[in-house]
Amino acid sequence: MRPIGKRKIVVLAEGGFDLLEAKTAVGVIRYGHDPVVAVVDSRYAGKSAYDIVGTGQDVPMVDSLSDALVHEPNTLLLGTAPRGGVLPAAWRSQVIHAMSKGLDVINGLHHFLEDDAELAAAAQSYGVDLWDVRRVPENQRVADTRAHQLAATVVLTVGSDCNVGKMSTSLELEAAARQAGHDSVFVATGQTGIVIAGWGVAIDRVISDFAAGAAEDLVMKGAEEGNLIFVEGQGSLIHPGYSGVTLSLIHGSAPDGMILCHQVTRTNIRRYTLAVPPLQDLVDLHEQATRHVKQSRVIGIALNTFGLDETSARRAIEEASKETGLPTTDPIRFGAKPLLVAVEALHQKGSCKTPVGDAVNEDQ
Amino acid sequence: MRPIGKRKIVVLAEGGFDLLEAKTAVGVIRYGHDPVVAVVDSRYAGKSAYDIVGTGQDVPMVDSLSDALVHEPNTLLLGTAPRGGVLPAAWRSQVIHAMSKGLDVINGLHHFLEDDAELAAAAQSYGVDLWDVRRVPENQRVADTRAHQLAATVVLTVGSDCNVGKMSTSLELEAAARQAGHDSVFVATGQTGIVIAGWGVAIDRVISDFAAGAAEDLVMKGAEEGNLIFVEGQGSLIHPGYSGVTLSLIHGSAPDGMILCHQVTRTNIRRYTLAVPPLQDLVDLHEQATRHVKQSRVIGIALNTFGLDETSARRAIEEASKETGLPTTDPIRFGAKPLLVAVEALHQKGSCKTPVGDAVNEDQ
Repeated sequence: MRPIGKRKIVVLAEGGFDLLEAKTAVGVIRYGHDPVVAVVDSRYAGKSAYDIVGTGQDVPMVDSLSDALVHEPNTLLLGTAPRGGVLPAAWRSQVIHAMSKGLDVINGLHHFLEDDAELAAAAQSYGVDLWDVRRVPENQRVADTRAHQLAATVVLTVGSDCNVGKMSTSLELEAAARQAGHDSVFVATGQTGIVIAGWGVAIDRVISDFAAGAAEDLVMKGAEEGNLIFVEGQGSLIHPGYSGVTLSLIHGSAPDGMILCHQVTRTNIRRYTLAVPPLQDLVDLHEQATRHVKQSRVIGIALNTFGLDETSARRAIEEASKETGLPTTDPIRFGAKPLLVAVEALHQKGSCKTPVGDAVNEDQ
Repeated sequence: MRPIGKRKIVVLAEGGFDLLEAKTAVGVIRYGHDPVVAVVDSRYAGKSAYDIVGTGQDVPMVDSLSDALVHEPNTLLLGTAPRGGVLPAAWRSQVIHAMSKGLDVINGLHHFLEDDAELAAAAQSYGVDLWDVRRVPENQRVADTRAHQLAATVVLTVGSDCNVGKMSTSLELEAAARQAGHDSVFVATGQTGIVIAGWGVAIDRVISDFAAGAAEDLVMKGAEEGNLIFVEGQGSLIHPGYSGVTLSLIHGSAPDGMILCHQVTRTNIRRYTLAVPPLQDLVDLHEQATRHVKQSRVIGIALNTFGLDETSARRAIEEASKETGLPTTDPIRFGAKPLLVAVEALHQKGSCKTPVGDAVNEDQ
C-alpha cells in the first residue's frame, strides 16, 4: 500500500455519492492528507464534488473508472455501500480494472476484499495491495483500565446520534491544537477516520467483550505520538443499536473530557422514532456514565448547524451555550476555537492522575 | 445432540472445579434439567460436588474420565477453562476418549471444538455431536427496537459486577413464576445459561454493532414461549471491560423492569481496584441509562450474601432494602418471593405499550 502522502485517490461511489451514504468519501475529501483526483458517480459526471456534497471544489465527478484514469490515480477508495448487495458485478469489474492499472485498493465496506478469492487473486497477479479498513486486529483482550493512568490528556467526542459530526469535530480540534503548538494526535475508531489517519480500529466490528480493550489499545498507541489525544467518538449512548459500542469506547478510552456533538435539525435518532432529549440531559447522561469508572466532564458542545442559515445557526449556538453553560460552536462552519480553549484549560490542569480504577487484571 | 431431558452429563473440570472457575459446571449442577452423573477433578476424587462448591450432594467427584464412565454418562460438558492454555493434550485425549464411548460434547469454552480439525474428525468418525455453546449466529443485525412494543413483560437482571448472581436470580425468578402459574420464560445470554436452557446467544461474543440486535432477537424468541420473560443479565454498567455488553443487552432487551444484583462482600469490581458505589447510585445509573431509549425501573434487589452468616445476611438485606426502598432478598438462600411479588405487580400493570422508541429502521 502506498503510504499516506504518496496516494492519489479515485473514489468509486457509483449511484451513492451523497452526504448520507458517502460519509467515508466526503471525509477523505475534506480531511485526507492525499488528493482525491476524481469521484466516479455517473449521475453527476461533469460536476465537481463540491456541487454535490459541499466540499471538494477541485474534485471532478466522472462517468466511470476509465474516465478517472486520465487524472492518474494510484489508489482506489471504496467508501460507499453499493446499492442492493454486497459487491455488484459492475463494481467488481471496475475494481479489477483499477487493479490491472496498478491501483491499490482501500476498502471501507463491511465486505472484505481479501476474503474474496477472485479479488485477492487479481490483487496478487497485478502486484497491488488491498486494505480492508474495517478488519480488526486478531489479538483482542478485555480492557484493564491502563488508559486511566496515562500521562496525557484524552478528549473524546460523544453525540446525540450517529453521523452528527463526532469525527469532524475531533479532526478539527486536533488540527487546531497542532496549529496552536500542541503535541496533538487524532485517534481513529471508525472506517473513515482510519482511512484519513492511516491507522486505527473500527470499534463497532470488535467482539463486544473486547471493544473497550481495543479502545484502550488505541489510546495507548496514540500516547506514543503526543500528549493531547483526540479520540473519534462512535454512535450514541441513546442509540438503541449502537449504545454498547459507545459505552465501550467511553470506558476504554477513559477520557479526561468529552465534547458533546449534536446536529440542530436532528430531533429524532436517525431511522428510529426515538426523540433526542435536551442537551443538558445528554450532558448529565454522559457524566453519570463515566462517574463510577473514570470521572469525566463534558467540556463543550459541537453543534452541527448544517441546513440552517447563518443567523439561525448563530442563534442555535447561543441557545445551546445558554442551556448547558458550556462553550459551543459549529467547528466546521465557525472554527473550533471556543472548544480548543476549553480543551487547553483541561490540558493545563493535567489529566486525572489519580484514577478511580487501576489495573490489577491479572488473568482475564 | 441428545436433547434436554435425555442427557446424562459428566463434567470435565480437571484442576479447576471451584466456585470461581467452574461457573458453568456449578450452574448446570444447580439449575440444569439433566442429571450430572460425575465431575472429573482428580484433586477431589472420592468427595461429592457439594463438598467443594456447596451444590450437588449426589454428584461424585472422580479421578478421571474412565472412572466417570461407570456412571453411564452420554454427554461430556467442558465448562472450566483449562489452566495455562487453550486445550492441553491431557484434555484433548480425554475428550476423544469420551467421543469414542459415544458421548456428545457440550463445550462452553472460547476455543471452538468444531474448528479443531482433529476433534471435529473424531466426532464424525464416532458419530457424536459437538456443540460450541459460545458460537454466535451468523445472521446478525442492528437492533431496531422491535422488543420495545412486545406484548409481554420483560425483566432483566443487572448487576454491580460480573459473577454476582444475575443468571441465578433470573433462573430462580423464572422457576418461582412458573410455579405460581405464570407463562414464564428464561432467556439465556451467556454460556452457562445457554447450556441450562438449551438455547440462547452468548452476547459478549457478538460483534459490538450487533449485540443489541442479538438481545432483541432473543427476547422476541422468548416471547413465543410465554409472556413473562426473564432475561439473564451480563457484566455491569460500571465494569470497565464489559459495560458495553451490558448496555447493548439493556437497550436490546428493552426491559419493563430490572432486578439489581449485588454480592454484599464485593466492595471492588473483581480483578480491578474500582470501588462498587452505593446501591442507590447503581439504581439511579440504570434508570438514567434506560430513560431516553425505553424507560425502565429497578423493581427489586437480589443480594448475594455468600460468605455471611445468617444474621449478617438478614441484616445486609434489611439495610439494602432500607437504602433503596426496594424489595430485597437473597433468592438462592431465602427464596425469590419478595422479588416475584414486585415482578407480578409489574406484570399486572402490563408492560410499557407506548414505547419511547419505535422501529422505522428501514435500511440498516
